[in-house]
Amino acid sequence: MFAKPGNKESLEHGKTLTPNFDANGLIAAIAQHAETNEVLMIGFMNADALHLTLEVGEAHYFSRTRQEIWHKGETSGQVQVITELRVDCDQDAILMKVMPEGDGGACHTGFRSCFYRVFENGKLVERP
Amino acid sequence: MFAKPGNKESLEHGKTLTPNFDANGLIAAIAQHAETNEVLMIGFMNADALHLTLEVGEAHYFSRTRQEIWHKGETSGQVQVITELRVDCDQDAILMKVMPEGDGGACHTGFRSCFYRVFENGKLVERP
Repeated sequence: MFAKPGNKESLEHGKTLTPNFDANGLIAAIAQHAETNEVLMIGFMNADALHLTLEVGEAHYFSRTRQEIWHKGETSGQVQVITELRVDCDQDAILMKVMPEGDGGACHTGFRSCFYRVFENGKLVERP
Repeated sequence: MFAKPGNKESLEHGKTLTPNFDANGLIAAIAQHAETNEVLMIGFMNADALHLTLEVGEAHYFSRTRQEIWHKGETSGQVQVITELRVDCDQDAILMKVMPEGDGGACHTGFRSCFYRVFENGKLVERP
């Protein structure tokens, strides 16, 4: 499905996407709002989830707790339509610029971003 | 060092930082530029690295390949001074707003962000 990761040089400067999955077959994937640049969430993808993400153009994650592929928004309507997909230097992380559909939220708690709390003076404070 | 993660309710709505480290004792940590909102990099932290990050106010990561704590910028000068630290809903990811010191880069390749390549028409294209 994807070519095997090469050496450092080809990972960093090659023109081929060769995702460097970890021992569990996963790669981190960050979703960032395409217009506001707010970081919405982070999830993990296995090869199938990354393949589906690229094919469909919508974020698919692999749930580590449920051990299954998860098409973000399938039940909530909060589909993440991908406008740009980047890979990092050693190809072990993905950055997606996304336009969220539905109510525009990304988090199951109802907040726009999963990062709705700041750590401040030793406590977590909600500041969505 | 940190309280143990509680149940879903306390993870999502508690006021205490209770990082939910994975089976390897790690948590994902995203560094985002405090002014431009560009995502600069992603790394992992163990409890010690997160503790140092909070205490010093500069990003410390845990290198999975070298299996050691890594004070970002210690040798490169690209220290990441933290202006805000957020945690996600299930407390298994950290989002840091940072001001990069030194030449302003975050990536060892010389690029400002580690995500300097876009996946486009089946190929990786450098677009820093």
